[in-house]
Amino acid sequence: MRLSPALLKVRFCKAHLQKMHGGRTAVTGFRLIRTLAATSFQPMTQQIQNFEVKGGPQFGRAHLPLLRAALSAAGLDGFIIPHEDEYNNEYLPANAERLMWATGFTGSAGAAIVMSDRAAAFVDGRYTEQVKSQVDPELFEYADLVEFGIAGWIRANAKPREVIGYDPRLHSPDAMAKIEAAAKKAGASLKAVDVNPIDTAWEDRPTPPRAKVHPHPLELAGEDHSEKRRRIGADVEEDGADAAIITEPASIAWLFNLRGGDVSCTPLPLSAAILEKDGRATLFIEDEKLTDETRGHLGNEVALRPETEFGDGLKALTGKTVRVDPATSSAWVFQTLDGAGAELQRKPDPVALPKACKNSAEIEGSKKAHIRDGAALVRFLHWLDTDAQSGDVDEIAAAIQLETFRKQTPELKDISFETISAAGPNGAFPHYRVNTASTRRLERGSLYLVDSGGQYPDGTTDVTRTVPIGDPTAEMRRHFTLVLKGHIALSQIRFPEGTTGSALDVLARAPLWNEGFDYDHGTGHGVGSYLGVHEGPQRISKAPNAIALKPGMIVSNEPGYYKVGDYGIRIENLQFVTDAAPVPGGDRKMLGFEALTMAPIHRALVDTTLLSGAELQWLDAYHADVKAKLLPLLDGDVADWLVKACEPFQGATP
Amino acid sequence: MRLSPALLKVRFCKAHLQKMHGGRTAVTGFRLIRTLAATSFQPMTQQIQNFEVKGGPQFGRAHLPLLRAALSAAGLDGFIIPHEDEYNNEYLPANAERLMWATGFTGSAGAAIVMSDRAAAFVDGRYTEQVKSQVDPELFEYADLVEFGIAGWIRANAKPREVIGYDPRLHSPDAMAKIEAAAKKAGASLKAVDVNPIDTAWEDRPTPPRAKVHPHPLELAGEDHSEKRRRIGADVEEDGADAAIITEPASIAWLFNLRGGDVSCTPLPLSAAILEKDGRATLFIEDEKLTDETRGHLGNEVALRPETEFGDGLKALTGKTVRVDPATSSAWVFQTLDGAGAELQRKPDPVALPKACKNSAEIEGSKKAHIRDGAALVRFLHWLDTDAQSGDVDEIAAAIQLETFRKQTPELKDISFETISAAGPNGAFPHYRVNTASTRRLERGSLYLVDSGGQYPDGTTDVTRTVPIGDPTAEMRRHFTLVLKGHIALSQIRFPEGTTGSALDVLARAPLWNEGFDYDHGTGHGVGSYLGVHEGPQRISKAPNAIALKPGMIVSNEPGYYKVGDYGIRIENLQFVTDAAPVPGGDRKMLGFEALTMAPIHRALVDTTLLSGAELQWLDAYHADVKAKLLPLLDGDVADWLVKACEPFQGATP
Repeated sequence: MRLSPALLKVRFCKAHLQKMHGGRTAVTGFRLIRTLAATSFQPMTQQIQNFEVKGGPQFGRAHLPLLRAALSAAGLDGFIIPHEDEYNNEYLPANAERLMWATGFTGSAGAAIVMSDRAAAFVDGRYTEQVKSQVDPELFEYADLVEFGIAGWIRANAKPREVIGYDPRLHSPDAMAKIEAAAKKAGASLKAVDVNPIDTAWEDRPTPPRAKVHPHPLELAGEDHSEKRRRIGADVEEDGADAAIITEPASIAWLFNLRGGDVSCTPLPLSAAILEKDGRATLFIEDEKLTDETRGHLGNEVALRPETEFGDGLKALTGKTVRVDPATSSAWVFQTLDGAGAELQRKPDPVALPKACKNSAEIEGSKKAHIRDGAALVRFLHWLDTDAQSGDVDEIAAAIQLETFRKQTPELKDISFETISAAGPNGAFPHYRVNTASTRRLERGSLYLVDSGGQYPDGTTDVTRTVPIGDPTAEMRRHFTLVLKGHIALSQIRFPEGTTGSALDVLARAPLWNEGFDYDHGTGHGVGSYLGVHEGPQRISKAPNAIALKPGMIVSNEPGYYKVGDYGIRIENLQFVTDAAPVPGGDRKMLGFEALTMAPIHRALVDTTLLSGAELQWLDAYHADVKAKLLPLLDGDVADWLVKACEPFQGATP
Repeated sequence: MRLSPALLKVRFCKAHLQKMHGGRTAVTGFRLIRTLAATSFQPMTQQIQNFEVKGGPQFGRAHLPLLRAALSAAGLDGFIIPHEDEYNNEYLPANAERLMWATGFTGSAGAAIVMSDRAAAFVDGRYTEQVKSQVDPELFEYADLVEFGIAGWIRANAKPREVIGYDPRLHSPDAMAKIEAAAKKAGASLKAVDVNPIDTAWEDRPTPPRAKVHPHPLELAGEDHSEKRRRIGADVEEDGADAAIITEPASIAWLFNLRGGDVSCTPLPLSAAILEKDGRATLFIEDEKLTDETRGHLGNEVALRPETEFGDGLKALTGKTVRVDPATSSAWVFQTLDGAGAELQRKPDPVALPKACKNSAEIEGSKKAHIRDGAALVRFLHWLDTDAQSGDVDEIAAAIQLETFRKQTPELKDISFETISAAGPNGAFPHYRVNTASTRRLERGSLYLVDSGGQYPDGTTDVTRTVPIGDPTAEMRRHFTLVLKGHIALSQIRFPEGTTGSALDVLARAPLWNEGFDYDHGTGHGVGSYLGVHEGPQRISKAPNAIALKPGMIVSNEPGYYKVGDYGIRIENLQFVTDAAPVPGGDRKMLGFEALTMAPIHRALVDTTLLSGAELQWLDAYHADVKAKLLPLLDGDVADWLVKACEPFQGATP
């Protein structure tokens, strides 16, 4: 890979959040080469993804001297570099790829600390190999991000009276409190900077994105933004606050019914907002992102100010009780409010839960998007079952082929994350991303795993299917069927109100556990409505999560099995929470799930001897539904293929 | 019920902790009429349980004037009366039944506040009916214990400058902090008392129990107390403390290998201890409880001081870092340490987790106790299937009959909790306790539910079976089989290390949920080794619990179904966590459960059409195990009955 500043101007699509340990995931050799702000429904012609290798030790070698000069000029003995950007983004815009610029590391989580004479790069367990190839060990020692962390490093390594700088817009208040305490113990001190020295040192740093922001149509949003502001404002008031700080761009997008194009994979308008308890609001956003249509849409209850004035907006909250979320708003927000004499109320972003509970317009939109996306995916699955059975197709070609089918859908706005296109042993890495160095052929006798999704104006999709190339072995079929049993259990379950995703997680794992297997990632994440492919607050995972599943919440259901060195299996549908049909004689109201994702589950991998009658019944009913919904959109060989793929295992076709 | 002071001298056996909402449970009309400190293995002859109605409005009518006079004499405008005693006991000794004395309320959780001119009684959702019959509404307003609580009442009702007393030995520090804040907001103030005014006002108050404390034999404990003290002390040191405060009597019993007899149902030595990081300890215990054998057993690394000097022991910790558990040690302990200038380290009781993980001697002992207890229970189940089928037996007679069979076991030391002997509609109350007013006949065409347990020197048992009287209906069999499916799922599951009981809870509920049912209590609690029938820190329930299940932990597995006005169903075994046998091809180490409880599950209630082959296989294997272990202890009709009760549903007898 050439170290070209131009290359850094592209925006990187970050990976499947929370797949592993609730953290973020690898981005190895993946980048987007266009700006995604089109608003008209035109089939895309450009290729969305490319597969070049990115990052590498040359970054640190070239940039560390520049950074140290900037630190020296700023009177700092060191500087802390987190992966995070100003917006807590999952997908960083190119101007915020500071950690990669300084170190060459491209993982989705990590940090570095650069002192005048030494430096350390911090990664978690997923990246212990990757860091070796991307970060020069002559320049950086490697350290554990989770157990040791920046705080641990500073306590052990900082020298008395050293002054270590940090950018308070890039850290959470709680993380900074820990680091502050560590610096104090070491006799060193921390200094918040106004201008990030990396931004000073970084020649040709890309400009921040300035994509146009557009209204999200009411027929898709299902609720006017004035109504949303009023009811969230009333919640804020009921909880005893005068105003709430909203810094999560997805929350802003939902609250004001706006969609932007500042980052890849998610139509976010990077900005900040203050919501008053009466529902009035101030949106801090760069002027050039706004159109007359958007100004009109926002109306006179939403004051518009440049984003550079957000600090002034915070300072004006003197004496007010202000709700602010330490998980989404930065230390800078807290310090500014505190300095202004506001009373801070630490509570979750008040938009997060209402946003997660989709209304009927959003659910209907999601269903339509999933049928559209399903038809594209079926074209691809047919292609895999025919052309790709040659054994000569490689992972990149397959990913491009899938992208091509999706782009033939005129409504596609973007992919919702980088496609995981993983052949054979690459599939055993749950967070694998293909690049030109890693790509493998889809060989006969192997499994191919594809995890992908699209962004449509009416919904966001995320689906994983595993497909045999050639004849699968009995072992592959057994492993696949165990994963399928877990998937079915989490599809069929009915549960009372108040049940959390943590309580349901075991259902997807039990069939694997009973055979001595497990998977090291969560089972399900929330999904937005033409917004983030990963959203909270609900989650289905081993990690405790106190949020009850509520009607309208969309979650993924994606158990897996990974045989290192051989293959990976994952079956993922999105499903939404809905009232369950009452069972005769039942005495309690139950909730249940309804599948959104429409795509056949490969029958050659199903070992029916391992499935119960009820499980086969679920599979047949699901396939009947897939066929009924997708067949009208398909014709010719693909339609014939779909009919066969959806044939019932039990009895006659329904 | 006569309001006799003598009646208050008996000790009350408190109920199934945490069955409902994690709280404690009802004690209606139940009391123990003997002192349980026998040490030799002699079959008991006295009746352990009796079934008189207790509590009632006459308590408040007689005692409120006495209490108000004592408050006036102490210069207090009011006083807070929690249910808890000085030892956070599940089963209060008679001298600590202060809430019942003041109000007449006998529930296992609750509180009251008595002001000079008004008073309130606080109960949770389980007791909203019971409080009406036991607490005079002319004297007490009723208030919600959980949502409103003492803090809520004080904030709403206390008048400026009122001084409200409390006994700091009876409250947790966190509960008191909340109440303090409420009093401050109301302009009132709290005053900690040294002498509880109830103890002053209570004429003929029973003396505190002074049962002899005996060594728990090494062959049953499996680990010498010096070794226990050293390893727990090392844990305390590793966590950065100089000493730990141990106030939970069960922790003291385990740590020093002692058993006492101060309360019913659990062989607790009421006392307190300070454990130093080097393993040396001071045990604060009344001299008259000690024997020469016990003094010799404790040796010279355990200093013995009267319990009245515990405060002096705490005050001597000036400058030390002291580990203390806010969930088990009282506000008084915290205040005393704080006043002495100790540095408080708020952490769980360091004994709780090691105590929960039984060693092989304890597990082997538990197995033996369960076989012994199972034989007694089989005699009872046989009796239910024969004599009690007449329809003329009542709940009290059945409970006495079961107690009689258990007492024929020479090793029985006590019952482990009051027997739940519930016929027909009484079974629909999960926490039901029979008294002379509530007892019902076991009528033909009904279900009878019996939840009971014994204390043996080598183990504690707790088992529930549901039995048909006459022919069960198809509906009863369906409901029973759904509960059984949940029980089997939680018996069969294999799970990786790190899995919590909260993660497994759904397995026991899913078959019920899928048919529109649920139960409003936890699925499983920890059980001690000849100690508490309810112990933590592990738990299987909807409520989040961060404690991973570890080998040696004993937990109950007790799903249920309750049809109000008709019947209740519960199936409870104790089971322990053990390494699961590896499955061929499995790639991860798994843990699993092994059943301790040995008693047939009534075959007439099993609808085999609702069970899978694997479920029937579990049931047959369990019954084969029960038969193999219990048959040698039985003969005649009972042995014949057991053979039939354990006949396999599938194929030939193994």
